[in-house]
Amino acid sequence: MRVLAVGAHPDDLEILCGGTLAKYAAQGHDVMMAIATNGEVGSPTLSKAEIADIRRAEAQAAAAVISADLIWMNHPDEFLFSNHETRLHFLNTVRHARPDVILAHAPTDYHPDHRTAGQILWDIRVMTTVPNIETEAPPCEKIPEIYYFDTVAGIDFVPQFYVDISQFFELKKQMLACHKSQAAWLENQYGMSYLEFIEHISRYRGIQSGALYAECFQLSPTWPKRPGPVLLP
Amino acid sequence: MRVLAVGAHPDDLEILCGGTLAKYAAQGHDVMMAIATNGEVGSPTLSKAEIADIRRAEAQAAAAVISADLIWMNHPDEFLFSNHETRLHFLNTVRHARPDVILAHAPTDYHPDHRTAGQILWDIRVMTTVPNIETEAPPCEKIPEIYYFDTVAGIDFVPQFYVDISQFFELKKQMLACHKSQAAWLENQYGMSYLEFIEHISRYRGIQSGALYAECFQLSPTWPKRPGPVLLP
Amino acid sequence: MRVLAVGAHPDDLEILCGGTLAKYAAQGHDVMMAIATNGEVGSPTLSKAEIADIRRAEAQAAAAVISADLIWMNHPDEFLFSNHETRLHFLNTVRHARPDVILAHAPTDYHPDHRTAGQILWDIRVMTTVPNIETEAPPCEKIPEIYYFDTVAGIDFVPQFYVDISQFFELKKQMLACHKSQAAWLENQYGMSYLEFIEHISRYRGIQSGALYAECFQLSPTWPKRPGPVLLP
Amino acid sequence: MRVLAVGAHPDDLEILCGGTLAKYAAQGHDVMMAIATNGEVGSPTLSKAEIADIRRAEAQAAAAVISADLIWMNHPDEFLFSNHETRLHFLNTVRHARPDVILAHAPTDYHPDHRTAGQILWDIRVMTTVPNIETEAPPCEKIPEIYYFDTVAGIDFVPQFYVDISQFFELKKQMLACHKSQAAWLENQYGMSYLEFIEHISRYRGIQSGALYAECFQLSPTWPKRPGPVLLP
Amino acid sequence: MRVLAVGAHPDDLEILCGGTLAKYAAQGHDVMMAIATNGEVGSPTLSKAEIADIRRAEAQAAAAVISADLIWMNHPDEFLFSNHETRLHFLNTVRHARPDVILAHAPTDYHPDHRTAGQILWDIRVMTTVPNIETEAPPCEKIPEIYYFDTVAGIDFVPQFYVDISQFFELKKQMLACHKSQAAWLENQYGMSYLEFIEHISRYRGIQSGALYAECFQLSPTWPKRPGPVLLP
Amino acid sequence: MRVLAVGAHPDDLEILCGGTLAKYAAQGHDVMMAIATNGEVGSPTLSKAEIADIRRAEAQAAAAVISADLIWMNHPDEFLFSNHETRLHFLNTVRHARPDVILAHAPTDYHPDHRTAGQILWDIRVMTTVPNIETEAPPCEKIPEIYYFDTVAGIDFVPQFYVDISQFFELKKQMLACHKSQAAWLENQYGMSYLEFIEHISRYRGIQSGALYAECFQLSPTWPKRPGPVLLP
Repeated sequence: MRVLAVGAHPDDLEILCGGTLAKYAAQGHDVMMAIATNGEVGSPTLSKAEIADIRRAEAQAAAAVISADLIWMNHPDEFLFSNHETRLHFLNTVRHARPDVILAHAPTDYHPDHRTAGQILWDIRVMTTVPNIETEAPPCEKIPEIYYFDTVAGIDFVPQFYVDISQFFELKKQMLACHKSQAAWLENQYGMSYLEFIEHISRYRGIQSGALYAECFQLSPTWPKRPGPVLLP
Repeated sequence: MRVLAVGAHPDDLEILCGGTLAKYAAQGHDVMMAIATNGEVGSPTLSKAEIADIRRAEAQAAAAVISADLIWMNHPDEFLFSNHETRLHFLNTVRHARPDVILAHAPTDYHPDHRTAGQILWDIRVMTTVPNIETEAPPCEKIPEIYYFDTVAGIDFVPQFYVDISQFFELKKQMLACHKSQAAWLENQYGMSYLEFIEHISRYRGIQSGALYAECFQLSPTWPKRPGPVLLP
Repeated sequence: MRVLAVGAHPDDLEILCGGTLAKYAAQGHDVMMAIATNGEVGSPTLSKAEIADIRRAEAQAAAAVISADLIWMNHPDEFLFSNHETRLHFLNTVRHARPDVILAHAPTDYHPDHRTAGQILWDIRVMTTVPNIETEAPPCEKIPEIYYFDTVAGIDFVPQFYVDISQFFELKKQMLACHKSQAAWLENQYGMSYLEFIEHISRYRGIQSGALYAECFQLSPTWPKRPGPVLLP
Repeated sequence: MRVLAVGAHPDDLEILCGGTLAKYAAQGHDVMMAIATNGEVGSPTLSKAEIADIRRAEAQAAAAVISADLIWMNHPDEFLFSNHETRLHFLNTVRHARPDVILAHAPTDYHPDHRTAGQILWDIRVMTTVPNIETEAPPCEKIPEIYYFDTVAGIDFVPQFYVDISQFFELKKQMLACHKSQAAWLENQYGMSYLEFIEHISRYRGIQSGALYAECFQLSPTWPKRPGPVLLP
Repeated sequence: MRVLAVGAHPDDLEILCGGTLAKYAAQGHDVMMAIATNGEVGSPTLSKAEIADIRRAEAQAAAAVISADLIWMNHPDEFLFSNHETRLHFLNTVRHARPDVILAHAPTDYHPDHRTAGQILWDIRVMTTVPNIETEAPPCEKIPEIYYFDTVAGIDFVPQFYVDISQFFELKKQMLACHKSQAAWLENQYGMSYLEFIEHISRYRGIQSGALYAECFQLSPTWPKRPGPVLLP
Repeated sequence: MRVLAVGAHPDDLEILCGGTLAKYAAQGHDVMMAIATNGEVGSPTLSKAEIADIRRAEAQAAAAVISADLIWMNHPDEFLFSNHETRLHFLNTVRHARPDVILAHAPTDYHPDHRTAGQILWDIRVMTTVPNIETEAPPCEKIPEIYYFDTVAGIDFVPQFYVDISQFFELKKQMLACHKSQAAWLENQYGMSYLEFIEHISRYRGIQSGALYAECFQLSPTWPKRPGPVLLP
């Protein structure tokens, strides 16, 4: 399968579904990680241009841990809106990726960039196969399935599916460790470290589901749905 | 009564509330069918301009089956957004129509054009009677009531009201038969025919409500509401 | 039509749907008011037997204001449970009444007797027409429709329908005035008077719906539903 | 796997998940069909004892179509309550069956026997492995997973999973054809035939999910959940 | 504490949380009242410019009743949208105010300006402390807490917290009395007076919560939340 | 204040709200811990009588850690039902305790004893002050407030309030350490230890709310509510 995960900022995917992406990759699927914004506000000291460059390199390194492709969409951090231009950009990106499965931010997440990135993907899903909507990339041959991944800190997210990531938790940590610039930022802004954060979140989702470490998902509400097995690893 | 139904694309109204519109018309009410977008992506082979022209004629023919007025709003298919311009256009359209009742797409429907068309109508409802919001058409004398019609394939729609359309199912089929250009498109895109689709959907809503064929609705959550009987036929 | 309203205690119906019952009666429908429990705890000074007798007479007087029939079910106040015996008693009561419409307590109301009375009615609805469930009264010929009326103080109740009771508010007050024994009790237990309570509640529901005074209802979620107009006055 | 489906009355399982059971069986799983009540009210003319005997034989024949085991629990139709005795009976039944998966009625279904049967299964799920709760059958070795199947006519049921039953729709019809006594009853009570009913319902769920015929399910909300693939065929 | 309330139009804050603001002020907190739009459509006779000027003066007078600061944001009435410009304006406004608590419109309110004003505040909450998002005002030192106040007429609002405003109801009335231009408008548009409206609404919320007069609130769903006491007076 | 927490089994309170109880106690409030059932199934090897005796002693020791009173209600483990007898027993227990605040199991918790214990408390809340409902203990003088505490593993629980228990986490661990008999049981039944479980759960609720360790609560939906500050420590 071809799996496309779309995060709002560099490090969102690693935090929210990194173990699942590692598991997909280990099972031989093609994994693509798209980052909607350039993460340029993620520093208390560096300029926007400086931190954006650094974060792109960090995202690249994190994707490389699981041999995933990085897609840098480069929208301005904190100012992603759903409009004609972004809808077409997301559509073109998805058509290039030709995914069987899209992993996306849930509509209840805390940050507007998260909610908007998820919303645009939901909006364009049925457009992916329609020829008369013209993009540089050709239409997809079939409509991809969309799963929402967990929200940051699990706020207002009721899981439908759990993926056991116990065997992939080390890879998840390695991916997050690539985001070196964010360590001080998180400590400063939210008073926590990545490792402590994901240790507790992943164990919590594990306790809920009988796994050591887990991540969780919902099926996006849409049509046409598809019957048969859930396409999670 | 004056009844205004607003569909996102040509054929949406026929599929989702065509029997109810036929029933309104048969009871002597004035029925107006507004189509928000030009349906220009609805073809795997024709150009946008070609298919838009064809679909407008088909929509006109379908409206004629029940002697309804067609209102062609001509926004670009797949790219309807809620903004200053569309809000004013919808407001002007509603003020021209002076409806007692508006039938609109529900906020849980699968397609962004559907959700946006319903959202704009919800947004402008209380503006219809306000003089200082200037449009070409004069303000309405009273605020219309909005009912949401069923979603495509009933996804995430919990009906509040059912309308028995058994006596009007043939008219509903005739209306859909006018959309000749979409037969091949639907078969190609979704693997189904109009007739098969509405036969099962309408029977399903009928089984739920004790009718042979039915369509279903929700009251939109808003204020001021109105007491007294539901304005459905 | 035949209309059966079932309240948990004497005075519940008058508070929650008294105006609507008066309106039904004024329109020529047969109105029956069933009281599930004997209200025997509704006094800070009188014995259970004394207050139960008084309240039955008060309920009788209140029903007489709108020429409704009173059905005294006489279950112990505060201890109504759903079991074999109460299910059969409610079923027999409904079959005797042969209602087209049942008005019942909503499942989110604050008092267990309210919730239980509504629950039993919901449970027996489809049993009313089944011959092999034997009761003294014969089976109904058709399944009645159930509407839930407002909860006390509107807690956790989202109205679907409003009934304009402006012309019947005086009758509602007269009905409540029959419950003389409860005036001191309410003042003592909750620090309010009937008249003040229903004045604000009925005006609040009126403000929501554009009427001077209103009461509100939900359709109970069940099957088979019925198409066509809502059976509220 | 061992699959236990528990229906409230004879024919409920065939209507609501018969195709899925046939698919499980075809895949080599052990399928057990437990019927909570004896269906003794399901006749407008026969006595309780007569119709109960007939329906047991019909249920046996339907189970035989897919080589499933029938478990006849024999509670009185229309009067299934959750109490000490029924909880222990359901617990013992499940422990005998030792299922990996339980298919159960959803809590929003229209009939109290349906809701109660599903509720008891939900209640006893975590008790199945506890030694100090003594039943004739020994404790299970692991806690089974519970999926809720669709409600009758889909009332208030939001599907999470769809099972493609297109290849098993003929078997579903054969299973229902075994319930000969119910044909006249359904026609009389609800004005429809089994075949017409399941044709439209199964196609409707298919239209939602891109299959010709489908059935749908929810995961029951409980703990401990389990990670990994959904155990539906 | 520093308390910032943001209303969509002049008079919204007085109606929906005026008593609570008076209570905050009486307790010695700094109260700021921001008005997102200029209210220029609020007249059946005056021009936009005329009525906007009048309403600003009225809002100023109302704020003065409780010695609150007025912040006039001056967006066009009925046309507030969430976009790059409004997001930055709201962010700058909040950073100037440096609030501990923000009171905002709830997402279920009836008017699009209400919903949009609340949405933008929800969106920018986590941005308030981020240095790289540049505004004229410097970043806040801590993320403010957001409470949603009641909707107009309580439509679709389930209260979590009630504030007893009995001692401040006279001040609430005085604040509303400052909006003289709206008296005729409300009578004309909705057939009611401010005083009658807030008398019933405030008593209704009081009846729900055991106070004479009350206003009610919800905590906005977001992250990071904060532990400890609710910051309502 | 007088605080009554009611757990279904020994150790439930310590897991779900032990830190909050410790905080109440440290603030000088009277804390009472009632245990609805005797916990007699909580052993893979001991008899019911043996393990019940052991668990009562353990519960006593845990309560002693924070100088709380233990109330042993002694219903049979796994078989708590809501009926006339249990309703009166709970009512008498609450009247003896005369609480300002009750902490109770939430209606979405995974175990039927949990849900039933919470349900009975919800049911009897308004009965506590009614003289004509006779119990050995006299009626309360005021109706207590009920907060629901978190569910086991947080399943289907959306927190409204968080209590920072960072300073009381050691006491919470000490309380749980008293339940020695359950260590092996939990390891055997669910493959985890108390300490690991509460470490992750309490940190997770802390991450959500900006505390090191937290517990979370909801206000029960009922009437009459009370205005003013939340009564959590």
